Amino acid sequence: MPDLFAVPPIAPVSALNSRQRFAACLAGQPVDRPALWMMRQAGRFLPEYRAVRQQHTFLEMVHTPELALEVTLQPLRRFGMDAAILFSDILTIPEALGMNVDFPEGGPQLSPVIRTAADVARLPSGDCVEKLDYVGQALKLIRAELPHNYVLGFSGAPFTLASYMVEGKGTRTFEGIKTLMYQHPQVFHALMDKLTDSVIAYLKMQLDAGADAVQLFDSWAGELRAEEYVEHVLPSTQRIIQAVHAHGGKLLLFARHTGHLLDASLRSGANGLGLDSRIDLASAAAKAKAVGMAVQGNLDPIELFAPPAHIHARVREMAAATKGCGWIANLGHGVIPSTPIAGVEALVSAVHGLATNSQGGSLHS
Amino acid sequence: MPDLFAVPPIAPVSALNSRQRFAACLAGQPVDRPALWMMRQAGRFLPEYRAVRQQHTFLEMVHTPELALEVTLQPLRRFGMDAAILFSDILTIPEALGMNVDFPEGGPQLSPVIRTAADVARLPSGDCVEKLDYVGQALKLIRAELPHNYVLGFSGAPFTLASYMVEGKGTRTFEGIKTLMYQHPQVFHALMDKLTDSVIAYLKMQLDAGADAVQLFDSWAGELRAEEYVEHVLPSTQRIIQAVHAHGGKLLLFARHTGHLLDASLRSGANGLGLDSRIDLASAAAKAKAVGMAVQGNLDPIELFAPPAHIHARVREMAAATKGCGWIANLGHGVIPSTPIAGVEALVSAVHGLATNSQGGSLHS
Repeated sequence: MPDLFAVPPIAPVSALNSRQRFAACLAGQPVDRPALWMMRQAGRFLPEYRAVRQQHTFLEMVHTPELALEVTLQPLRRFGMDAAILFSDILTIPEALGMNVDFPEGGPQLSPVIRTAADVARLPSGDCVEKLDYVGQALKLIRAELPHNYVLGFSGAPFTLASYMVEGKGTRTFEGIKTLMYQHPQVFHALMDKLTDSVIAYLKMQLDAGADAVQLFDSWAGELRAEEYVEHVLPSTQRIIQAVHAHGGKLLLFARHTGHLLDASLRSGANGLGLDSRIDLASAAAKAKAVGMAVQGNLDPIELFAPPAHIHARVREMAAATKGCGWIANLGHGVIPSTPIAGVEALVSAVHGLATNSQGGSLHS
Repeated sequence: MPDLFAVPPIAPVSALNSRQRFAACLAGQPVDRPALWMMRQAGRFLPEYRAVRQQHTFLEMVHTPELALEVTLQPLRRFGMDAAILFSDILTIPEALGMNVDFPEGGPQLSPVIRTAADVARLPSGDCVEKLDYVGQALKLIRAELPHNYVLGFSGAPFTLASYMVEGKGTRTFEGIKTLMYQHPQVFHALMDKLTDSVIAYLKMQLDAGADAVQLFDSWAGELRAEEYVEHVLPSTQRIIQAVHAHGGKLLLFARHTGHLLDASLRSGANGLGLDSRIDLASAAAKAKAVGMAVQGNLDPIELFAPPAHIHARVREMAAATKGCGWIANLGHGVIPSTPIAGVEALVSAVHGLATNSQGGSLHS
């Protein structure tokens, strides 16, 4: 892991732009105030997003760089978020690997499902990046529009992608992927290895296109016991993170329902850990700091429905819990479509309110 | 909390029947082998259940004591489970309180939803037990059939019931119930108080009808942060447990995704804690023992799809993790409909295989 906490500040903290602020938070350096973005900030809770969505299918928006640019910029225009995250989907890799991916009501559908050694062997090996050129194009547009904001790319992590590819859809039981792991571990690992290669190539391409860092979404990793995660998933995560670092990039790791995986995640080498709302922020931030990691999170997205005073109090609580640690303010999961704009405005105002008035000092770090 | 761990064994361990064995496990006393049952063991994974279900709707089966008896007995006949759990549903209380409860494909639907102080005020106060007489009748039949097995009643816990009553259906976001809690805490608590009264009356009735103990399912409690759980939910759980104890009964507390609530749950006063598959069994069992509690769980239901050797190894691992502690072998969540019978047979054989051959000794406790 890079010794991020040893690097001196890149600018006087009183003069940080959003890009510098985010980088400093991720590196555990002093800042004027914490950087802020929200998972799924480019999405259905915004009227301006829904206006675009009315004219285009979800997949058209993902596949068309100019449309992806537009909705990526929307939350920054409205709320002044410090980071932009590429508008895309975690299922771009299965699609680039030749699966049919569709998004009817009720969640994604993938076909034909992957179940056997032959199914895995048929997948094109590793590098599917040429088919994902539209993502690189979108990131180049975003980078050009936002020289002073932090730009995040992202990918689904191999276990999460494998879950979708084996189940063919979202699942509450994970019967298919776990059964494959228990009954045919060599097939499971062949699939994980191919996906790890693809994710690495994809993330390198995103960094080349201008992303400052990438977030790895291992949405379903929390379904595994810690021993299973360490044996079957963590090695691929570590391999991805090493490759991103070797390519000069930084990586944020996020998964839901992962309090039981915190200790394992601290061994991943990630620059920052996205925390689920249920994880105790103070103890996680202290543990992360001890291994040179920042934390990101972890307001419950439903707390954006609470009165503004509640949101302000929780933001102050989170700031106190992460005092002296690298912290990027965010939610503990994606913002949901029915979220009131006023709740997000309260979050923004609360985080901005953490700024100190003194010269170059910082309430937070 | 009763000092269960001080009570002497109720029979020589070499001569325990299932009812005695379960009681001893729950009390942390020596046993010949751990007691075993499975959450949702009376259900769709059994062909004999599906045969009954073909003739009757789900609600007919819940409402008809003879049908509830039949499916309650099925897993004991086939697998020799130590405990029977009443075949019923957690939504009996909302129905008894006058809501329309239906079970179309896609999950339960309740109407009209509860949202306001007036909605809560309209609910009949506390005692809705006369409308739940069919549950008492079913338990009496079960008790009469199974004098030598442990008989478990159950109820949904107030927060979980309130979630269904406010959302009107299952939810992934908990937007309705959490928004009520954040915006109108007094309405939320009025609802929780009414439901707590109802649950207490319901569980006392079940104990009077012959249940040895009751399990309280707080299925959705894990969606809350620990601070929220302690403030808004734990007091009602504690009140229920005190009432059950005052009535001479015992209580098992279960919720999913609750690793972050373990410490709070240890203060509930429950006799036993059902553990999600993701919770580290060894440390949870040690913590529970320190406060005079047993633990129950926590094989991942999907591990029943694994080869028998995997299941046997995991059962030995769980036994080792709970050595010297009160432990009831179970899953970490309900058995799912597609579960192979052979997997359940492997679980049964593995747990039975933990028995010692020596006179009166015990490998486990």
